[in-house]
Amino acid sequence: MSPMLETLNTPAALIDIARMQSNITRMQLQADQLGVRLRPHVKTSKCLQVVQAQIAAGAAGIAVSTLKEAETFFKEGISDILYAVAIAPSKLSKAWALRSAGCSLKIIIDSLVGAQAIVEFARSRDCSFDVYIEIDSDHHRSGVRSDAPALVEIASALHHGGIALLGVMTHAGESYKLNTPEALRAIAEVERRECVAAAEAIRAAGLPCPEVSVGSTPTALNAVDLNGVTELRAGVYVFFDLVMHNTGVCTLSELALSVLTTVIGHQREKGWIITDSGWMAMSRDRGTQSQTKDFGYGVVCTLEDEPVEGLLLRSANQEHGIASFDLPGIDVVSEYPIGTRLRILPNHACATGAQFPNYDAVHRDGSIEQWARLYGW
Amino acid sequence: MSPMLETLNTPAALIDIARMQSNITRMQLQADQLGVRLRPHVKTSKCLQVVQAQIAAGAAGIAVSTLKEAETFFKEGISDILYAVAIAPSKLSKAWALRSAGCSLKIIIDSLVGAQAIVEFARSRDCSFDVYIEIDSDHHRSGVRSDAPALVEIASALHHGGIALLGVMTHAGESYKLNTPEALRAIAEVERRECVAAAEAIRAAGLPCPEVSVGSTPTALNAVDLNGVTELRAGVYVFFDLVMHNTGVCTLSELALSVLTTVIGHQREKGWIITDSGWMAMSRDRGTQSQTKDFGYGVVCTLEDEPVEGLLLRSANQEHGIASFDLPGIDVVSEYPIGTRLRILPNHACATGAQFPNYDAVHRDGSIEQWARLYGW
Repeated sequence: MSPMLETLNTPAALIDIARMQSNITRMQLQADQLGVRLRPHVKTSKCLQVVQAQIAAGAAGIAVSTLKEAETFFKEGISDILYAVAIAPSKLSKAWALRSAGCSLKIIIDSLVGAQAIVEFARSRDCSFDVYIEIDSDHHRSGVRSDAPALVEIASALHHGGIALLGVMTHAGESYKLNTPEALRAIAEVERRECVAAAEAIRAAGLPCPEVSVGSTPTALNAVDLNGVTELRAGVYVFFDLVMHNTGVCTLSELALSVLTTVIGHQREKGWIITDSGWMAMSRDRGTQSQTKDFGYGVVCTLEDEPVEGLLLRSANQEHGIASFDLPGIDVVSEYPIGTRLRILPNHACATGAQFPNYDAVHRDGSIEQWARLYGW
Repeated sequence: MSPMLETLNTPAALIDIARMQSNITRMQLQADQLGVRLRPHVKTSKCLQVVQAQIAAGAAGIAVSTLKEAETFFKEGISDILYAVAIAPSKLSKAWALRSAGCSLKIIIDSLVGAQAIVEFARSRDCSFDVYIEIDSDHHRSGVRSDAPALVEIASALHHGGIALLGVMTHAGESYKLNTPEALRAIAEVERRECVAAAEAIRAAGLPCPEVSVGSTPTALNAVDLNGVTELRAGVYVFFDLVMHNTGVCTLSELALSVLTTVIGHQREKGWIITDSGWMAMSRDRGTQSQTKDFGYGVVCTLEDEPVEGLLLRSANQEHGIASFDLPGIDVVSEYPIGTRLRILPNHACATGAQFPNYDAVHRDGSIEQWARLYGW
């Protein structure tokens, strides 16, 4: 345990660098074994040092959730960037500014209207874009179905409009709701099959579609065959979290992000330990509420990151967390006196990280480095 | 409607300045009529221009939820600051740094251990603090009960330890769960009665207790008599939000904070309008889920801030929101084409504001100013 954890300002977002590195290695190995490139989604960390570690391990390019991420990481020398949200027409000028500055930015679209907006913008500025079409493989959110007539219409509009149609991409977000290896293997196969089918439908129409990009952390880690796929995307694996733990893809001891907190009070009769980790630190994410095991606002751990049996952060106000045990019988006032420091494993690493301007990254030797995190749009 | 709303980068956090000013006036009038000072809690906005408008309207000092807020607003010339979270012993040196720089910082505590830590710190540094004791008036969270023997023990430890015991303070957070004027009047009276009783118990022991500070937005607006109280605190009234609307203290047309968003896609058969206002913009706050009317992730409005009947933001991923109607029958693709701009009224203004580095503050004449917002600890 780092002695600095006793003196750091709280709340703080701690990264366990050793765990993070091991998570990065695990996903990179998985991609290597499946014979596909890995494109980490950096929306989880939004942090240069984390992304550099992913690239050092073998990642090929990154995916981003905002153009601000693209701008920031491009400035830091990363050029191969996929903006993985269907682009609003009003954002095309920002995207083009990045491309004309030399960024190999790829954008995505899932409608004919969106494709036409890209074609018109490119025509009016005499420029071009590299575009993926988003496929809806699991009825989760966005995307066009692989058997929808719109798919080839979009591909054709882009190609004949002078836009480089790079390929198709999908994200099986429904996988977050599953929790057995069998179910995750099955949805990973659906994700692959649907995306490959979309690429084949486009190719059958005589249009180019070289790339097939799929992924989510649970499907990426459970896929056994990615035949026809060229690229895997995943984000939250870099830290993992309680939602991922509930899907079965990681143990609690693989969670690399935790919130360092200080006990600031008690309500002895109620068994409440009041901490300075409210929702402003944890985020309001209650992702495990709808899963098999509801962890409240997080699993309370010792400073050594050992979960305390039965102790959860059960509720949160803005700057107050309330932790209590499953069962009565423990005098929280004497066991967890004011000033005690604890660590909380969060439901959702992307949401919890977003609450902090910086991470405190803990090296194996106990030294701590501040790593900046970007936010906003 | 400001024409700039058609070109602003989205998502954006819009402040309707006219509504904000009207909310500020309303609360200041209420405090004036009740014969107490108003100390706005700035954790809602964390924004200098908003706080300056509150002070211009008559507010006396501010309450903060973090020492970073205290540091930031003190640098901007605001000196009378109450840090309204029980202070962790490890934060005393930061608090003292503020006081020795000339800030009239007040801190709070609700335990003997906490009081002793303050006394010891002050003794070791030969300094002093101005302290309020936090009272638990409604069994909501922190604080000591007015009839608990600990109350006078804490007061005595502070006073005889050379610390200036300024008074008592409470926050009736349970009021957020109520929704009738009768129930809110009743809890406002409980808040007042319990806090005044605590002050009287301290005074009866021969100890000083000049100040009695109470407040939450719902109790502040429903209190009819604040006999014995010297100061009212409230925060979210400056913007209001859907949670407050559900308590009955404001209409939807008084909500001053909304998220500007762009339609980026659809799933026509499901009636889904996909927007760029995911939970990264709205926050994960689902405060209305446990109230009489669940507004999902927010009420969708036109650019003129008129709620669209039956249209809610029903789910949210990181950068994707999904809006849909209560009833089928509307072709969302033709009615809300890609590129359409909408505004979303959020569940919880404090949580939604926190997702943005800046507000876009809309003047009555349609001009827009960027107002910075602080974050972190």
